[in-house]
Amino acid sequence: MGGQNIFQQALNIRREHRERLNGHKGQVIWLTGLSGAGKSSIANAMEVILHENGYRTYILDGDNVRGGLSRDLGFSDEDRVENIRRITEVSKLMMDAGLVVMTAFISPFRQEREMARGIVGHGNFVEVYVSTPLEVCESRDVKGLYKKARAGQLANMTGIDSAYEAPISPEVTVNGCGQSIEETARMAISQIASLRMER
Amino acid sequence: MGGQNIFQQALNIRREHRERLNGHKGQVIWLTGLSGAGKSSIANAMEVILHENGYRTYILDGDNVRGGLSRDLGFSDEDRVENIRRITEVSKLMMDAGLVVMTAFISPFRQEREMARGIVGHGNFVEVYVSTPLEVCESRDVKGLYKKARAGQLANMTGIDSAYEAPISPEVTVNGCGQSIEETARMAISQIASLRMER
Repeated sequence: MGGQNIFQQALNIRREHRERLNGHKGQVIWLTGLSGAGKSSIANAMEVILHENGYRTYILDGDNVRGGLSRDLGFSDEDRVENIRRITEVSKLMMDAGLVVMTAFISPFRQEREMARGIVGHGNFVEVYVSTPLEVCESRDVKGLYKKARAGQLANMTGIDSAYEAPISPEVTVNGCGQSIEETARMAISQIASLRMER
Repeated sequence: MGGQNIFQQALNIRREHRERLNGHKGQVIWLTGLSGAGKSSIANAMEVILHENGYRTYILDGDNVRGGLSRDLGFSDEDRVENIRRITEVSKLMMDAGLVVMTAFISPFRQEREMARGIVGHGNFVEVYVSTPLEVCESRDVKGLYKKARAGQLANMTGIDSAYEAPISPEVTVNGCGQSIEETARMAISQIASLRMER
């Protein structure tokens, strides 16, 4: 173990120290798209590839956020905004911890995604638009939500009776159908300059 | 880059994969003690030592939580509980991401610390009691809070007009006075079995 000298080197460990230890930048990769577009699957596949290449990663999605940090929130407009705000703040902390953080939420509104970008900081935020068309998402209907929405049993379903505002100039656009998830994930990674695979 | 085989190895990256990559367990080290006890200083010193030894670490404290994730919260009893709840949930996510997470909050009540332990999970939670006596904390009074509280200008100051419930059986107890911060940090680390320095 080092002696007194390490305290002369750094009184506090900051993001730059963690990034140096990890060998890559901390950053936030924000996936947006309709329910069923493939956001979580693509994020998972990206994580497998990045992890195998030594990246320190994490994925925030409905599974690990809605039952914990946001368990007090419902699905009103106000609560959805607060949910996205908290996810953004946690992403920022994890990025500061040196991680490549991927978020997989519909996040349908431009304004909330711009809020996220503003909080995280422009140079740290990569918006990935998963552009799978509604018809494909609806035909998959993995969670049965589109069927419910069409039957009038579910209100505010994005793409049905609530708007999805597609990104105007996302850093990356991938289509979540027409090729394998792995290929889509590789394509997304290849378009993110800060995730160069050679280190 | 690996080929198709990596998808046969792991369809999802889980905590165990991240811990293997990092070479250590993810865990939550929860520092508790009076204002001015030295929690943040000790956590910082622990982080420097751990970082220099290759550990992936992060510190959650008032500086990075109150202005972000908990910016909507005040200092009522209800808001304080919600603040600790959110910190706990974020700690748990960061632990799942493979990090050694240190938290530096007064967290004066046994019940809130037990809530945190319950959420994080017993085997993952190390309670560190920074037992610096009130007289020492008050004589330091780095933030001038004790003076304000004594003058009746600040209500609910822990140790003055609000209780501090000392841990009954914390995993670690360190006194935040009488020796250097670095020595105290080394002592705390040496008492945490999961932070063996030889790896």
